[in-house]
Amino acid sequence: MVNQVQKADGSWQSCKSDSSGASNSGESSKESSRCSTPVLDADRSDRLRHKMRRRIESGDRWFSLEFFPPRTASGAVNLISRQVDPDRTVAIKPLKVSLSESTWSLSSRFDRMGSGGPLFIDITWHPAGDPGSDKETSSMMIASTAVNYCGLESVLHLTCCNQTKDKITGHLGKAKHLGLKNIMALRGDPVGADWEEEEGGFNYAIDLVKHIRSEFDDYFDISASLVGYPTGHPEAESYEDDLRHLKEKVDAGADFVITQLFFRADTFLKFVDDCRAIGITCPILPGIFPIQGYQSLRQLVKLSKLEVPEEITQVIEPIKDNDAAIRNYGIQQAVEMCRVLLDSGKVPGLHFYTLNREVATMEVLRQLGMWIEDPRRPLPWAVSAHPKRKVEDVRPIFWASRPKSYIYRTQDWDEFPNGRWGNSSSPAFGELNDYYLFYLKSKMSKDALLQMWGEELVNEESVYEVFTCYITAQPNRRGHKVMCLPWNDDPLAPETNLLKDELEKVNRRGVLTINSQPNINGKPSTDPIVGWGPPGGYVFQKAYLEFFTSSENVNALLKVLKKYEPRVNYHIVNVQGRNLTNAPDMQPNAVTWGIFPGREIVQPTVADPVSFMYWKDEAFALWIEQWAKLYEDESPSRMIIKYMHDNYFLVNLVDNDFPLENCLWQVIDDMFELLDAPPERLDDGAASEYNVFKQPL
Amino acid sequence: MVNQVQKADGSWQSCKSDSSGASNSGESSKESSRCSTPVLDADRSDRLRHKMRRRIESGDRWFSLEFFPPRTASGAVNLISRQVDPDRTVAIKPLKVSLSESTWSLSSRFDRMGSGGPLFIDITWHPAGDPGSDKETSSMMIASTAVNYCGLESVLHLTCCNQTKDKITGHLGKAKHLGLKNIMALRGDPVGADWEEEEGGFNYAIDLVKHIRSEFDDYFDISASLVGYPTGHPEAESYEDDLRHLKEKVDAGADFVITQLFFRADTFLKFVDDCRAIGITCPILPGIFPIQGYQSLRQLVKLSKLEVPEEITQVIEPIKDNDAAIRNYGIQQAVEMCRVLLDSGKVPGLHFYTLNREVATMEVLRQLGMWIEDPRRPLPWAVSAHPKRKVEDVRPIFWASRPKSYIYRTQDWDEFPNGRWGNSSSPAFGELNDYYLFYLKSKMSKDALLQMWGEELVNEESVYEVFTCYITAQPNRRGHKVMCLPWNDDPLAPETNLLKDELEKVNRRGVLTINSQPNINGKPSTDPIVGWGPPGGYVFQKAYLEFFTSSENVNALLKVLKKYEPRVNYHIVNVQGRNLTNAPDMQPNAVTWGIFPGREIVQPTVADPVSFMYWKDEAFALWIEQWAKLYEDESPSRMIIKYMHDNYFLVNLVDNDFPLENCLWQVIDDMFELLDAPPERLDDGAASEYNVFKQPL
Repeated sequence: MVNQVQKADGSWQSCKSDSSGASNSGESSKESSRCSTPVLDADRSDRLRHKMRRRIESGDRWFSLEFFPPRTASGAVNLISRQVDPDRTVAIKPLKVSLSESTWSLSSRFDRMGSGGPLFIDITWHPAGDPGSDKETSSMMIASTAVNYCGLESVLHLTCCNQTKDKITGHLGKAKHLGLKNIMALRGDPVGADWEEEEGGFNYAIDLVKHIRSEFDDYFDISASLVGYPTGHPEAESYEDDLRHLKEKVDAGADFVITQLFFRADTFLKFVDDCRAIGITCPILPGIFPIQGYQSLRQLVKLSKLEVPEEITQVIEPIKDNDAAIRNYGIQQAVEMCRVLLDSGKVPGLHFYTLNREVATMEVLRQLGMWIEDPRRPLPWAVSAHPKRKVEDVRPIFWASRPKSYIYRTQDWDEFPNGRWGNSSSPAFGELNDYYLFYLKSKMSKDALLQMWGEELVNEESVYEVFTCYITAQPNRRGHKVMCLPWNDDPLAPETNLLKDELEKVNRRGVLTINSQPNINGKPSTDPIVGWGPPGGYVFQKAYLEFFTSSENVNALLKVLKKYEPRVNYHIVNVQGRNLTNAPDMQPNAVTWGIFPGREIVQPTVADPVSFMYWKDEAFALWIEQWAKLYEDESPSRMIIKYMHDNYFLVNLVDNDFPLENCLWQVIDDMFELLDAPPERLDDGAASEYNVFKQPL
Repeated sequence: MVNQVQKADGSWQSCKSDSSGASNSGESSKESSRCSTPVLDADRSDRLRHKMRRRIESGDRWFSLEFFPPRTASGAVNLISRQVDPDRTVAIKPLKVSLSESTWSLSSRFDRMGSGGPLFIDITWHPAGDPGSDKETSSMMIASTAVNYCGLESVLHLTCCNQTKDKITGHLGKAKHLGLKNIMALRGDPVGADWEEEEGGFNYAIDLVKHIRSEFDDYFDISASLVGYPTGHPEAESYEDDLRHLKEKVDAGADFVITQLFFRADTFLKFVDDCRAIGITCPILPGIFPIQGYQSLRQLVKLSKLEVPEEITQVIEPIKDNDAAIRNYGIQQAVEMCRVLLDSGKVPGLHFYTLNREVATMEVLRQLGMWIEDPRRPLPWAVSAHPKRKVEDVRPIFWASRPKSYIYRTQDWDEFPNGRWGNSSSPAFGELNDYYLFYLKSKMSKDALLQMWGEELVNEESVYEVFTCYITAQPNRRGHKVMCLPWNDDPLAPETNLLKDELEKVNRRGVLTINSQPNINGKPSTDPIVGWGPPGGYVFQKAYLEFFTSSENVNALLKVLKKYEPRVNYHIVNVQGRNLTNAPDMQPNAVTWGIFPGREIVQPTVADPVSFMYWKDEAFALWIEQWAKLYEDESPSRMIIKYMHDNYFLVNLVDNDFPLENCLWQVIDDMFELLDAPPERLDDGAASEYNVFKQPL
């Protein structure tokens, strides 16, 4: 296709765009400014209405997914994530508007559903469930998790019936602060049968649409729904009235329409024609409900006052006790209806009422060829969909295993690094606090953690063994696998597995690794293990190794490192802040980067010596908060962890010579060799230069 | 050495710095902000006084060089540059404060003298030579050339005697606008013997120092000089008075002192001691004058009223007619004196009065081991020392052969790209105008240009031959070498020579190349041909080719390029702005980048589709302004150039697969093959899709 590029003199010239059909429209280019344009994903910087417009222009159909928040904390745990131990679900009193633990456990569901490529998801508003609160089950927090940690474009439902203006404004302000950009404006069900219009209050969704536009200008994209029933709203005086109300909502500022569910394609297509006839021009998305069971269908029909067409009841009634048969029918019925809708040319995207279930919706989308799992990552780390973070494409490597912590500690930043990390002499990471350290910890129960990390530690070697078992994925001497460490929530990444043998060897000897990556010299960006970014590119890495180790080891290491100048950059620090680095001018060192067709260089990960000082406070605190506190005060186990916290150093090493074989293992080997040598070798020469380490610690 | 890094809580921690001794001081880190820190050269972002302080702290001695502006235009040409043809020196009426042609010809001298690594150069102020004007020989313009085009830290002298405050303020404002950051504040010589102090006027240098500080706050670094005679100013009532005046100037805001010349180390060392004794703590630089000839010495002594010590006159008088002997003696005398000065530990740097001659000063510095030519480039292009450009590290590749044009057209930008070019939808390049196109043209005479480019062109092939001779460095059929083209001021770069055979082949057939680079997959940054940046790094390039060619060729090329999607990015445009590109989202494509130890990625050159539309206006205009206008109106030669200007396309190609063999030659070969095929092949299929090119042009 041929796009337009505007020249300085105001004239337009045509230019052929890439196959994705993305165009640099005049409008979006106004938003962009030098050095702040996302490189890898034009979608990331656009608002939802523009994404829709681009897809419509290119003929690229999309789908979207609706979820409801779990009603109770334990319900959330049972329903949303199989990995959460209910014992760990505790009341949480956040220090500020923030994200609680159980909402994070949603990530896995969202990640799975997000991997198929929905244009957006939406989260329903449950007035009875304290939907705007900081509770882990609130609509607000679930939507925030989707945006901030799962990187999903999200629409938050909001109902206005029986709400004060102040309360609504408060919800909207909070949503904006959390990075939510889209609101589905709803009236909501009046409470009780004696509901009456309130003078000057919010009686209809249009009041909410107007309020959003008057209080928040153009910030939010707004969806109108529900009253936009394809068959006419049950309470509407007439289908024509219903259409007129919808037109008014769109005229008041709604950007797109999602319909309630329906069972016949014709119903929806007539509705679209009728909308167009009265001048509704915005996108209208059909709400698709794959029938998933007899009871759920009956309940839904009862609630929505919809009639199920006879051709469907005739099929369902005979098989109503056969759940599998009904599900299969539901999938087949939805696929057929969607095909008719898509073939009509009037449907730019499909909206699915998932009921928080994955299987049916995914199967419908697969059969339609619209569920396209793309295992490639746009960046080596999961991007956030918070609008403040839309240009973010650089992070320090230190938080690689704790991305939620990184997002949490940087949530108050006004701008995020793009293209280059820069010399951040004052990066202003959020302060550590107990809330943060405690609630960001493992989802395991205390008993499970003790089984993994040792009911009773006898010496430092007991700790080495825990690290070694984590690396090797072998059970410890009591037969329990070590699935996580205070610094690593998850088992080893496939990439780290590339280093497994070397990691095992050094952990056994007290080089307690918490972060590492191999060097990579130009692998294809589609590589299944280390690839990221668009196809046709090449990714690179410098070898990185980060570990805790004793001061004796550090003394030997410093001597060894002299041989590796300037090939190896190091940064060595203890909990008191004793600190040695050879970083030139305290500048960041890019350790991951990628080269792509037609793009600027992307360098998503750096080892930044200034940020490292903030990370080390967190890394050391995790020893105490997550490990030592598992044991009784004054117990030997607790004293051992406390001793290591007080006396060990945190070390990071970068091998700058990425085209050569990684030399960091040789560095560690040389250190061990020096340690194994007669003692006089360790005390001569270089060691004395580093007398900062010879003072009592 | 151990440096300090400040934490957010205000505490300081020690960290080992790199061997360059550069520290990230609290003060300089305040100036830096995220994403705007220069990566490769800490010196680039610092002001002169901070550079001096850093050098003093690290014990790293420097030197500086003083030049005077040539008095007349033809004098400038004869004296400064051997390559300038006097015929071309014409009166210039700039449209705005800008840089005229003849000053650019200074570049070669400055480049040679700059290559030895002076900390700064200074340009004297010649009140009789209209020093603040836009004339090519003015002090102001010479200093501006040094800063903007040669990247030299420069100090502009300024005298205040007999000047109004408004005039002085005007000079200073202009200097600031041009990017000059340092002023040597001088009284200047009173005009005539009847000079009297003027009430409230500028009578002494201290008045100027105070004026600079009151009108321009801390913007300028200020040097005091001349009156700081090591032996006491001839006009001073006493040596003590002279010292007291100097102290007052430093107290008023002068940042460092440069002395007048002297012939005995003791003279200077006593002077430093006396300065320190009365509390002058700033750097004091000795003015070194290597004796270069008998007459010049006599004249200088007469002007400065200095006495030449007897031990020197005793040597010189007997050899006064032997220039070479005197020069050798001058070098030997200067070297010995400088050694004493440096050994004293009281001299952080040496200031040389060069009298615009290179040889003696360079030889003295070489013998002292202070002239360290470093052929490595910090970036692939010459950096500018304008303070606005201190963070600039990305430029479009299109102006690679016309860097002065690029600097000129971007001089009004408020900020310069750093780390990433970004999606510059409105880069606001300065407009083309006749002044600009005409005066930025070749320094050759019209006759010389006609000899190279053809007294008479008979067809387009005559033009192909000019391009081919330029590429091959072979004489044309009349025996003249083609040393430049309208798009290339200089002979082929060594790097382009790597492509010579292929370039010759395609130019012969009408692919008229004006810019190209080979692909590079990780060569050492110290590579003598393609290397740049600090040692220990690796540099990379994507192959790039830019050329004019006929619309027939473009039709075939477009068909061929379909085979090379997405490997090859192209941008094809004609003078009317017909424009085809496959650049994704009109984003820039990084075509040169480097990976260095302990640094972020540097990507100094991009192919930016938006900037290309500005470049093409310039590239097409050069056909007319620099080539067609050499011929009579309506002459066949002029019509041929005009035809090519009107009908040829400008094409750029980037091969994204930098690790593989450059495919761009294959692309051109395929194009020729298609053109050589029977005509039906060209007209079928793809060609018809690009019907924009089939309309009459």
